[in-house]
Amino acid sequence: MLRLVHVGLGPLGRRVADDLVARGLGQVAGAVDLAPNTVGTIFHGQMITSDLVAALDAPHHAVIVATASDLRRCADTFRTLLERGETVVSTCEELLWPKLRHPELAAELDALAKRTGGRLLGTGINPGFLMDTLPVVATAACNAVRRVDIWRVQDATTRRVPFQQKIGATLDREAFAAREREGTLRHVGLLESLALVAARLGLRVERTEETLEPVLAERELVCDLGPIPVGNAAGVRQVGTGWNAAGDVVVRLEFKASIGEAEPHDRVLVDGDPPIDLTIAGGVHGDVGTSAMVLNCVRPLLDAAPGLHTMDTIRLAGFDGTNSR
Amino acid sequence: MLRLVHVGLGPLGRRVADDLVARGLGQVAGAVDLAPNTVGTIFHGQMITSDLVAALDAPHHAVIVATASDLRRCADTFRTLLERGETVVSTCEELLWPKLRHPELAAELDALAKRTGGRLLGTGINPGFLMDTLPVVATAACNAVRRVDIWRVQDATTRRVPFQQKIGATLDREAFAAREREGTLRHVGLLESLALVAARLGLRVERTEETLEPVLAERELVCDLGPIPVGNAAGVRQVGTGWNAAGDVVVRLEFKASIGEAEPHDRVLVDGDPPIDLTIAGGVHGDVGTSAMVLNCVRPLLDAAPGLHTMDTIRLAGFDGTNSR
Repeated sequence: MLRLVHVGLGPLGRRVADDLVARGLGQVAGAVDLAPNTVGTIFHGQMITSDLVAALDAPHHAVIVATASDLRRCADTFRTLLERGETVVSTCEELLWPKLRHPELAAELDALAKRTGGRLLGTGINPGFLMDTLPVVATAACNAVRRVDIWRVQDATTRRVPFQQKIGATLDREAFAAREREGTLRHVGLLESLALVAARLGLRVERTEETLEPVLAERELVCDLGPIPVGNAAGVRQVGTGWNAAGDVVVRLEFKASIGEAEPHDRVLVDGDPPIDLTIAGGVHGDVGTSAMVLNCVRPLLDAAPGLHTMDTIRLAGFDGTNSR
Repeated sequence: MLRLVHVGLGPLGRRVADDLVARGLGQVAGAVDLAPNTVGTIFHGQMITSDLVAALDAPHHAVIVATASDLRRCADTFRTLLERGETVVSTCEELLWPKLRHPELAAELDALAKRTGGRLLGTGINPGFLMDTLPVVATAACNAVRRVDIWRVQDATTRRVPFQQKIGATLDREAFAAREREGTLRHVGLLESLALVAARLGLRVERTEETLEPVLAERELVCDLGPIPVGNAAGVRQVGTGWNAAGDVVVRLEFKASIGEAEPHDRVLVDGDPPIDLTIAGGVHGDVGTSAMVLNCVRPLLDAAPGLHTMDTIRLAGFDGTNSR
């Protein structure tokens, strides 16, 4: 049985702990959150504390951190944990490929982990699986890879309200543009996924670009946030593109999430030898998937050498069926 | 640049070496074969020798063994290599999950490798990727897995003649049955793939069965072996099934390879939470893919701890783009 300390008990952090117990995979050994209305309450038999170090007192195998997307905002938490030689799996999106935006911090955390015997990994359904790990695996059967195109096309109708808000559903063009300027609209991690794919496949990306635009409702739609008039945003389309020195596109990722999307799917198209055209019909549900990825990566990370890891340096992660019910 | 010693220079063994050089991934450091008409000839700048130990003299990173499907027939080669601490990737089908049929030999090779610092891995396109590694990866986003169905459906028209012979193409029912009794017809490794999937996903298989039958030509067909009259074998269908203690099917693998197959594809269907329905349209070509898998697994195996490895214990294998042309 895995004994995990859970840091960050928002909807996602709670879901990971709930799934840990529901799967029979393990137990909650500690619970940490800063929200005043949760501290002091009981969560899966543990009193929620705001004191990270105190929560590490009980015996445990690993720590789950589900706090922020921005690696800098998580850095002190990671330092505190790695100084104590902890094994840490986090949903921090920038941690998927930390050296893209924070090379010095990544080097610092790697050196710290190696010194103490700690381990750190960022994962999730996306980034973490559909637009990076799965495309890399798909090329295992290739003798050449010239270009990789990746699509994640989701129907946001069945997603939780914060997700619908995050993709700008219901907003008119002006409000959408304002939210875009604030930087609160985008899916975080697209260029991290691109960087992982390019690095692992030797695609030598010299220039990248990320674009974002609303997916406009072509008919009246309704979602949990309310009605969406024709012409307002039903969601978002983000495209990350990587070019090589010759000016050829070698990686392209398209993330599209909108209310009423007719044909949700995940797809990886490899221009290679042999070519690979892989599709997951209907796509993979994001809220379930991120919790699953976190839990399924704990044992592969525990089996890895100390250090800062990425999804391509740990052993193959699949469903962890140990003690499965 | 990888420097590899190649043991076994049949069509597949030669292809691996050819691809190594063509990809710019490395060089042939040694070449071993027992066929009298090849020994003493030059292959990628190296004289082919029948002396395995002598071929290890030149500096090299790893050894590729492409000799036999049966692990017992490869055992002395593996012993010789592991006694010298070599890192070995082999296309031996039974080596995909060696403890299924040869638990004592697997334990012996593992202990030997750990003592000397050697490493041993069995891989290929199938077994090795499409019906085992890929299905395991596909479940990484799952919080529950109840059953996995896997299909590999190939059009054998474009495969090499030995493959067409291996699947019984052109044979009438009597000749097909005779070849089946000889045991020379079947795809080797189906139950090894099943065992890997079941073990990794905790599916607790208590009983397995493997069936084999001809795919009969419904119209006149032609292949490189000659014409196929209506009613003769166009190929083979093999099904491996695994049941749990309650008598439920929890893993099912269907391998079908025949001349003129209309809709070749590879598919993984996971009855899980969330469900996953993954398809590679057109399927993955087998001859290219096995060579690619072998080469793409060399560096992941070199990065692993000493011992007998399987595809789920090495780091994520994708296309190895180091020095790619």
